Amino acid sequence: MISWTARSRKSHAHRRPRRGRPPRPPEEAEARQRLIRAGLIHLTEKGYTATGLDEILREARVPKGSFYHYFDGKPAFGAALIEAYHQYFAARLDRFLTDDPCPPRPHRRLHRRRRRGMARHGFRRGCLVGNLGQEMGALPEDFRARLSAVLQDWQARTATCLRAAQTTGAPSQDPDQLAAFFWIGWEGAVLRAKLDRSAAPLHTFAQGFLALLTP
Amino acid sequence: MISWTARSRKSHAHRRPRRGRPPRPPEEAEARQRLIRAGLIHLTEKGYTATGLDEILREARVPKGSFYHYFDGKPAFGAALIEAYHQYFAARLDRFLTDDPCPPRPHRRLHRRRRRGMARHGFRRGCLVGNLGQEMGALPEDFRARLSAVLQDWQARTATCLRAAQTTGAPSQDPDQLAAFFWIGWEGAVLRAKLDRSAAPLHTFAQGFLALLTP
Repeated sequence: MISWTARSRKSHAHRRPRRGRPPRPPEEAEARQRLIRAGLIHLTEKGYTATGLDEILREARVPKGSFYHYFDGKPAFGAALIEAYHQYFAARLDRFLTDDPCPPRPHRRLHRRRRRGMARHGFRRGCLVGNLGQEMGALPEDFRARLSAVLQDWQARTATCLRAAQTTGAPSQDPDQLAAFFWIGWEGAVLRAKLDRSAAPLHTFAQGFLALLTP
Repeated sequence: MISWTARSRKSHAHRRPRRGRPPRPPEEAEARQRLIRAGLIHLTEKGYTATGLDEILREARVPKGSFYHYFDGKPAFGAALIEAYHQYFAARLDRFLTDDPCPPRPHRRLHRRRRRGMARHGFRRGCLVGNLGQEMGALPEDFRARLSAVLQDWQARTATCLRAAQTTGAPSQDPDQLAAFFWIGWEGAVLRAKLDRSAAPLHTFAQGFLALLTP
């Protein structure tokens, strides 16, 4: 396994784009994008610790030197992956909630999409945030705040939708608590779907959650 | 890190107890027990991949040779840990369900115990089954069936209790589905409590689940 070396910024500063320079040519942005994509594949499958630099480089078709042009090391790469994953699902969530803000329809759509997405990859890929959360004991400590913030943000978007559509005022239907409940259980469902290689856990959790939404 | 070497059974067969021999002396059983305990600590904190043999040996105060007296290698050790963890929680679950079989009381008690247990270790330790489930992409493939079987067994014990106490017959209250829902979400709650270093996710999930139990 090629080792992940934390290089100092200084050692490759001459290769970094400087202030005032023209934007990166398309092939540069593309290589970074390929590294991110390869990282997401491997980390959602196996997590952070078990993923080696060599498999990322091979998958992304990028030489080792180029990797360090974009990322200072494995922790910086991991942080970039969390950010990319966060934004991707936040945008998807917003689209579902804007298209049809009335619960439980956006949740049904999220469930359907997740089920199809996991099935497409033989249920090998889980949630990046869940995978890294489970590994926290072996990860850089600053990942904890990053991962918590992602879940808090997804929860807040969900709560906004639930609040807007809510008509009943029962205490068990508090939108923030419901949204927190959803994201706690949903991560459990994705984990179990990956373990059982089956969509059944996603379905079971979605059904139970929807039963909570309908008084 | 001392590497985990898969040794053939033959190479240390002379140290294995043979059929018909007297049972192991107490200090032998104790050393195996210390290895199991050390393994559970490290694997519930960091998972399988990130745990090295050296930390297990140090924690258990057992020399490397003795480790291979009990286990053929890391996979055999992992399988023994899953079995020990399974039996420990199955016994606890049975005790709760026998002491007071009426839902939601056993679930409240499980929640309270888990919250105290996690708090005692600063929320660093998660669930062994959840941790390994999340890592499946990097684990020996036979772990999948072992982990699924543990969750199925815990679910079945929970469903038996729910069924025995159930009076309503609404479809959303199907005991098997409810028990499956509980274990899916509970694993998500333990994961999140470990990530946030807080009991709040356990509480949020328990509250939502109890709301499902009370029609």
